[in-house]
Amino acid sequence: MIRFRKYFRRKILAFRNRLGEKAVGRCMIEITNAIEIVKRETGVLAAERIALNDAVGRVLAEDIVADTDLPPFDRSQMDGFAVVASDSKNAPVTLKIVGESAAGRGWHHTMKPGEAVRIMTGAPVPTGADAVQRVELTRTPDVSFQNSGTLETVDVLESVKKGTAIVRKGAEITTGSKLFSKGEVITENMIAAIASFGYATVEVAKKPLIGILATGSEIVDVEKKPDRDQIRNSNSSMLKALAENCGAVVETFPIAGDDLKTLKKQIAKASKNKDILIITGGVSVGKYDLTKTALKDLGAEIFFERVRLKPGKPTVFAKLGKVLVFGLPGNPVSAATSFYLFVNPAIRQMQRVVNGSLRSGVGVLSDTVRGIKVRDSYLPCEISFSSDGRVLLRPLKSTGSSDFIAFARADCLVFVPRETIIEKGSPAQFLILPTR
Amino acid sequence: MIRFRKYFRRKILAFRNRLGEKAVGRCMIEITNAIEIVKRETGVLAAERIALNDAVGRVLAEDIVADTDLPPFDRSQMDGFAVVASDSKNAPVTLKIVGESAAGRGWHHTMKPGEAVRIMTGAPVPTGADAVQRVELTRTPDVSFQNSGTLETVDVLESVKKGTAIVRKGAEITTGSKLFSKGEVITENMIAAIASFGYATVEVAKKPLIGILATGSEIVDVEKKPDRDQIRNSNSSMLKALAENCGAVVETFPIAGDDLKTLKKQIAKASKNKDILIITGGVSVGKYDLTKTALKDLGAEIFFERVRLKPGKPTVFAKLGKVLVFGLPGNPVSAATSFYLFVNPAIRQMQRVVNGSLRSGVGVLSDTVRGIKVRDSYLPCEISFSSDGRVLLRPLKSTGSSDFIAFARADCLVFVPRETIIEKGSPAQFLILPTR
Repeated sequence: MIRFRKYFRRKILAFRNRLGEKAVGRCMIEITNAIEIVKRETGVLAAERIALNDAVGRVLAEDIVADTDLPPFDRSQMDGFAVVASDSKNAPVTLKIVGESAAGRGWHHTMKPGEAVRIMTGAPVPTGADAVQRVELTRTPDVSFQNSGTLETVDVLESVKKGTAIVRKGAEITTGSKLFSKGEVITENMIAAIASFGYATVEVAKKPLIGILATGSEIVDVEKKPDRDQIRNSNSSMLKALAENCGAVVETFPIAGDDLKTLKKQIAKASKNKDILIITGGVSVGKYDLTKTALKDLGAEIFFERVRLKPGKPTVFAKLGKVLVFGLPGNPVSAATSFYLFVNPAIRQMQRVVNGSLRSGVGVLSDTVRGIKVRDSYLPCEISFSSDGRVLLRPLKSTGSSDFIAFARADCLVFVPRETIIEKGSPAQFLILPTR
Repeated sequence: MIRFRKYFRRKILAFRNRLGEKAVGRCMIEITNAIEIVKRETGVLAAERIALNDAVGRVLAEDIVADTDLPPFDRSQMDGFAVVASDSKNAPVTLKIVGESAAGRGWHHTMKPGEAVRIMTGAPVPTGADAVQRVELTRTPDVSFQNSGTLETVDVLESVKKGTAIVRKGAEITTGSKLFSKGEVITENMIAAIASFGYATVEVAKKPLIGILATGSEIVDVEKKPDRDQIRNSNSSMLKALAENCGAVVETFPIAGDDLKTLKKQIAKASKNKDILIITGGVSVGKYDLTKTALKDLGAEIFFERVRLKPGKPTVFAKLGKVLVFGLPGNPVSAATSFYLFVNPAIRQMQRVVNGSLRSGVGVLSDTVRGIKVRDSYLPCEISFSSDGRVLLRPLKSTGSSDFIAFARADCLVFVPRETIIEKGSPAQFLILPTR
């Protein structure tokens, strides 16, 4: 009897072992592969026209084209006098003031040698003039002389080179040129240029609609005092902030428990009319990790459920009808890392951003870091700059992948390939976190 | 008669020369001095309590303090079995499963040697256990064995060290510790940590109220087609975006002309009930540059009106009653540069940010740059990263300080001291532009 049990048991252990192997290694996919799958499955949203004043952070769905030359005329960069440069060769020289060109009120005649036109910053340079001498290098007689019948003149005190203080018509851009292209994120520094060409409104991609659903019987609302075994729901607020930062409109749903039937209902509700559903928690291999079961029961197609990533291994990516579903780990640092790597590019791609991944760079590590087995790591670090122009990457003092207090100070995620040691002072790749 | 006129004229020229010198040099102040004056004259705003969900970008007016230890209990980092590590010394070993600790539903008894507790990620580790062996390194008999009366057991396949996969109570933070301080800007990555300690609302500085008034008869509204000598008003939209980016509420006013009486009325209106008024244009030495005259007539105290800065020399800083008034140059690049150097720190200081200046760093220049005379320059540059971990600063191809199309691509402003050449490959200081 004992022998029989032992035999049976060995068979079962062998079977479980295979399952185990599968769980550990075989169905984990590479990070790059996971990103590719997300990109492949992500569509694009329709466009809408909005006021330029609301456009920062939105993504252009039209090219921005110059409808005029800029400057629209030869423009003075200085307050002073428009002159013929050759007249000033033997400065000081006295020239006859024949007019005035102010910003908005140009002098539209032809200036001749021996003449000068008083000119203001931003005003059109008259035809015939080929330089502007700034006012500080000129002298004009007192106004009282005009009253005594003296012709108004100006002394140009120093010679001036042809072209000085003039920005030529079209020097910045010519009519019909493309300034910015579809798929560019509109930044604060682009606004002046867009406004200059009459775009009081701009065509941009719609904002993706995102539902956020935190799961787990251990989490309670932020305003509640947790019981002995509980913690507060920090993921919903965090993910809302992260998703809004890359241009989404977010609805957060009440915490889902770990009853399969209820969970399925809540997933169905939270994904309704959304472009993306983000679920946190319930994606490990524990017996209450029901997110995948619920998704499968609802008919979702699951593309991957484990990534060779630390932190963030149990990241699930699925589609429920047309809705992209991301099942992120319950601990906030893992959830944030998975968000930055997978959800952020999806949100940006929906808005037709050409390359929606985080901006990357190379810096040098201030400490030696060690990769782990099987999975590649993304290590939260602070950025500083050395006096010789290097980017210094300082790993945050952390007690592990769950330490979101240390993570709060992160500027970037440093890539540490598996089974690799990056020595202190060696270059390492990082992704810049697009936070404030 | 001619001799007399010549004599008189020399006298006048000498007088004008002195005025001219003053305009060029004497009353221009150093950039650092200008920033100091702005800081000295800037007060702080009251605080208000807002929802954590709206808090990104706002400035803390209270310290964030931990109201619990985190983790609140010894927490498992894995799905697996809580064990006494010494039991696993001669693994494989079979242990008796005495209970289950799930996230939110801990097993609150004392575990003895020879026993194991099934445990989920995030769940409390029972008293008596000192390690968690992950599920992949264990085997449990099939459930059917339980039905045949077999005691439930687990085989721990590999030995496990004391402390493995356990985050100790309080390892991340202990009750009463300060996480974040008054004056810190709330970022996306801080939200999870703030939420964890029950801050469903946070006390933050109020948003400064800012009026924006563009002046000049040459500028027309964005939606209008400019006449021959006109350009569109790009400054109001740009400054609104820049001010909102650092936390202000902005009201833009209709373009002011260059009639002194009207201008005074418009300044009075635009500054009413505001913390800051930003005026653009009308600050040069041209005869239609009436901003300073209007401000003086209204009784404003003018602190400086010229800065040793390129671009942005004719920057005016004044106070009209309690309202800070910034008179920025009319060209958008100069206006943006002055905004970043002077207005941004004022807005942040009002919100009690401890150091509200832009973040600085050192990089190496990809091209040789030359400082000018008299004034220090801030040169718009793009940042990239070399493969050896250096910050590369590439000056934007620009036709001059008015080229806001080139400026749209700027990541940073590189400091070029006056009368200094910074050679290609040499280190240079930069300020990071806090844009998207």
